[in-house]
Amino acid sequence: MNINQRLSDLREVMQREHLAACIFPSTDPHQSEYVADHWKGREWISGFNGSAGTAVVTMTSAALWTDSRYFLAAEEQLKGTEFQLMKLKIEGTPTIPEWLGKEIMQSRHPKEDWSEVAIDGRCSSVNEVKGLIADLRKENGITLRTNFDPLKQIWRDRPAIPEHRVEIYPLAYAGESCHDKMVRIRKALRERHADGMLMAALDDIAWTLNLRGSDVHCNPVFVSYLLIDSKNVTLYINKVKLSSEVMDYLKTEGVRVEDYELVENGLKKYFEYNILLDPNEVNYRLYEVVKNKGRQNDFPKTEIVEEESPVKRMKTVKNEREIAGFRSAMLKDGIAMVKFLKWLKAWSSDNSSESMTEISVSDKLEALRAEQPLFRGISFDTIAGYQEHGAIVHYEATPETDVPLKPAGFLLLDSGAQYLDGTTDITRTIALGPLTEEQKRVYTLVLKGHIQIELCKFPSGASGTQIDILAREAMWREGLNYLHGTGHGVGTYLNVHEGPHQFRMEWKPAPLIAGMTITDEPGIYLAGKFGVRIENTLLITPYKETEFGKFLQFESLTLCPIDKEPIVKEMLLQEEIDWLNQYHQHVFDTLSPHLNEDEVVWLREACAAI
Amino acid sequence: MNINQRLSDLREVMQREHLAACIFPSTDPHQSEYVADHWKGREWISGFNGSAGTAVVTMTSAALWTDSRYFLAAEEQLKGTEFQLMKLKIEGTPTIPEWLGKEIMQSRHPKEDWSEVAIDGRCSSVNEVKGLIADLRKENGITLRTNFDPLKQIWRDRPAIPEHRVEIYPLAYAGESCHDKMVRIRKALRERHADGMLMAALDDIAWTLNLRGSDVHCNPVFVSYLLIDSKNVTLYINKVKLSSEVMDYLKTEGVRVEDYELVENGLKKYFEYNILLDPNEVNYRLYEVVKNKGRQNDFPKTEIVEEESPVKRMKTVKNEREIAGFRSAMLKDGIAMVKFLKWLKAWSSDNSSESMTEISVSDKLEALRAEQPLFRGISFDTIAGYQEHGAIVHYEATPETDVPLKPAGFLLLDSGAQYLDGTTDITRTIALGPLTEEQKRVYTLVLKGHIQIELCKFPSGASGTQIDILAREAMWREGLNYLHGTGHGVGTYLNVHEGPHQFRMEWKPAPLIAGMTITDEPGIYLAGKFGVRIENTLLITPYKETEFGKFLQFESLTLCPIDKEPIVKEMLLQEEIDWLNQYHQHVFDTLSPHLNEDEVVWLREACAAI
Repeated sequence: MNINQRLSDLREVMQREHLAACIFPSTDPHQSEYVADHWKGREWISGFNGSAGTAVVTMTSAALWTDSRYFLAAEEQLKGTEFQLMKLKIEGTPTIPEWLGKEIMQSRHPKEDWSEVAIDGRCSSVNEVKGLIADLRKENGITLRTNFDPLKQIWRDRPAIPEHRVEIYPLAYAGESCHDKMVRIRKALRERHADGMLMAALDDIAWTLNLRGSDVHCNPVFVSYLLIDSKNVTLYINKVKLSSEVMDYLKTEGVRVEDYELVENGLKKYFEYNILLDPNEVNYRLYEVVKNKGRQNDFPKTEIVEEESPVKRMKTVKNEREIAGFRSAMLKDGIAMVKFLKWLKAWSSDNSSESMTEISVSDKLEALRAEQPLFRGISFDTIAGYQEHGAIVHYEATPETDVPLKPAGFLLLDSGAQYLDGTTDITRTIALGPLTEEQKRVYTLVLKGHIQIELCKFPSGASGTQIDILAREAMWREGLNYLHGTGHGVGTYLNVHEGPHQFRMEWKPAPLIAGMTITDEPGIYLAGKFGVRIENTLLITPYKETEFGKFLQFESLTLCPIDKEPIVKEMLLQEEIDWLNQYHQHVFDTLSPHLNEDEVVWLREACAAI
Repeated sequence: MNINQRLSDLREVMQREHLAACIFPSTDPHQSEYVADHWKGREWISGFNGSAGTAVVTMTSAALWTDSRYFLAAEEQLKGTEFQLMKLKIEGTPTIPEWLGKEIMQSRHPKEDWSEVAIDGRCSSVNEVKGLIADLRKENGITLRTNFDPLKQIWRDRPAIPEHRVEIYPLAYAGESCHDKMVRIRKALRERHADGMLMAALDDIAWTLNLRGSDVHCNPVFVSYLLIDSKNVTLYINKVKLSSEVMDYLKTEGVRVEDYELVENGLKKYFEYNILLDPNEVNYRLYEVVKNKGRQNDFPKTEIVEEESPVKRMKTVKNEREIAGFRSAMLKDGIAMVKFLKWLKAWSSDNSSESMTEISVSDKLEALRAEQPLFRGISFDTIAGYQEHGAIVHYEATPETDVPLKPAGFLLLDSGAQYLDGTTDITRTIALGPLTEEQKRVYTLVLKGHIQIELCKFPSGASGTQIDILAREAMWREGLNYLHGTGHGVGTYLNVHEGPHQFRMEWKPAPLIAGMTITDEPGIYLAGKFGVRIENTLLITPYKETEFGKFLQFESLTLCPIDKEPIVKEMLLQEEIDWLNQYHQHVFDTLSPHLNEDEVVWLREACAAI
């Protein structure tokens, strides 16, 4: 069935329901960034498979909003469909409400006044829906229907909600028991004047319970909700996922188990005065359930405390065991990366006749990682983009796009692994042979940005929005930029993207605190030419304390040489040269005891001072 | 009458009104930063005269919250009173609601349940009061009374609202007629789905009408409101302020005039569907008037569009005439500064016996500025802080604190003028003789920060929060910091602080756009030792346009040498040395044609390359 047929089916439903438009966001009831196939409705209706994007369909038109990471990919995937690409954050791009205001006005049925738009309230956060309602009202009073899933009737082969097994995450890696975490959570709830909370974020639930799953590709989480009140903790989950061992564990931890579908009932029966619902995490449907509770007379009204879930910060500040796990995972990842780079560089310099492609090198790297202890899989789909493919920020090679590598230019390689003791995320841009002057210059600008973040010292509690510019200022002076964030948190054998703290141009109020992990990954992408990105994962550690307060610094956890061939040394400041040489010395000292003789020889050269 | 007597009078009123506490903010009904004496109620009740601070009085305790600029001054001024100093942004300082929650709980009358707190709703913005209501509710349900001014009954010699004359601001300086500004404002209101707006910010009104006044010390504004609907513009002002010439001008521009006190009536009679009220600008009392309008049956209900006033951005983006005016004002200011610096440096190096103090040098500088054409006064009270006084960020020398200068150490001098063609704001830290190594090092760190802002290139629309770190990163590496913002907008013969754009650590969503002015004023303050601040006023101008969009840069409008004596050259990057030398060359080239021979000789030396 092609996209146009799906649109036509959808419009039949819209006609019947008197809907002027339908909005398809990219998330699930848990506000996940990556979702199980069951919730890939936006991909199903539009054909666009990026991790972020919103499809909107009216009776006569269709459009898809996505961000710069996916402009090139989306353009490709939307070809031949009705969908028009809307580039977020580009001047002139209308917002969804603005566009709907115009489209609905133009196509309005002369006799009827359809100005209702539908969105599945389960798959959007409270804040998103509230914002949408307010913005649509300004467009000639368009209203939003949130209790209707238009896909239900037309997506006939929709995949089921996954039912993979849940496993216990050993305390040796988690570093803090579920019981102790619950004590901290309850204390934080009291401070926020809440008696309980509904946890919907899958990684928050996995962290709290010290459980892991495999319901979502690359993300070791399991689909569920966790409802906490002053006495009880209830996990809403499909029980087939729980072995008797896990059931016993949950019982010991005092966690009751109910069926996933019963969460609304649980909220209706929640008998306390206050409940914390994080409006960026909880979906609108469940929020409405709590909000409307007072209307029935069976239960007392519950006040909603709309604040950020305290679990977010607890989870992102790693404890000692978790930090030790990260170091162990990074060591293994570094070993795999060095073996890989040595092999790839040998191929490029030997002028070997062996044929290599983006996919084949990704497979090789995965195989090398799989040899490492506690390997559990990759932490996201590898981005291996050769030359112009490197300019597609979230490129994922497919058999159709895969190209053979040549001994020239850049291969951008962004990859990571899930080990039981930690999650990794690393990007290297690798010279496969001769480079242009432009390539070297751009590479060096990205490297300068990367190093300036590494060098930064800052007061505890500063935001990533303040620090982000250090990665960009050198390239801004040349009129260059990248439109994605500079860095994100990384989970402990959990999601590779862990928030809310980030480095980015947009405001992120989340303060940076000692113990957090965060990536440092500036880039430059020249469409049709090449892309450069250099990424390490950093740990935030104490720096010094003075009369002006506590200051923090970054420590690179990632252990892997940064390709020196493309560097234009004259463009680097002395402090940048010093950082690079010290980092390389550290990489060499840490990895070499774990490598064979040939590898040590190669690494010594790769880590030699410039 | 002393502070304790005032508190006792106040508590009598509180007793009568059953109030648990009263809150005294520092602003007026127009959310002014600097206010006419009539509204200095917080100063009257507490004795603290800084521009920012909130006093809170319960039946048994009193406290004053202020920011780091005023810690030292407030400590001094609160001595001998009941007031406890609360240092904002310092760990452990409770918020006002948190403190009230505790205090009221402790002192609660055993028989009665007083838990109402009063604030004059006219002297706080909508957002402030809403936030306060929400936060107080969390503290055991404390409620807020907003329709009561406790000072009315006890402040017997309260100064009247000023009645100074209003003057027309010539088009030659304003660069855009009132008529044209109104066309732009109405267009912006339509885009925001509003039929009209209430303007309360005094500088916005002065800018819109091309009028100036002198109701507030150093700020050429006049106390008034401006109500715009789709047909009419009404200025609410005490009519004695308007000459027949100004009355005629207003009539020509189609502006009706009503008495200042009648603004509530005007809002009640506002007959349109939508009105824009900027919740950070309009006071809570007037907001309530509009909100409650529907309750009487005489007038239809009006919807409030709560958005930032579009006038703010219009006013901060200077037109060509305004920019030309700034250049002219800066030239005059530079001439006065050079004459002053030459005189001061001669005194310090001649080992002259002439006695000089912080106040006497401030007077000298003001006299030199007054010689310049179109001088209208100073733009804020001069900060002349010698040695340890320089560490008091907003120090203002008084006869009691004034100290004689010695030929050693630093004089921090922050000053500015109002000229009819523009407003200036400049800080120089001047070596009066031998310096310590610490002084030189700190000075050079501040200079590095200043220059890094000057060098920055950035995408149009970036926020000052993103850029701020460039001024701090060098000092953060040494564990040093300053807790004030790095820069603020400057008005056109208007307020020296003009927002909302700023450089600061806190989030300021206001984008930076070509045509804006902004100061660049990092500092370091070592309590009891000395303070350093170096400030130029910058203009934002286009830099280049590339595939990544429009990039902007800064141009220093301020024309005055930066003292080179304290510089530790080895601490500067080559680009920083280059900037300083180029800036000095530009200062010399621009100012020297306007100076006498001796002055040129002095300036050539002061501007010689390092």
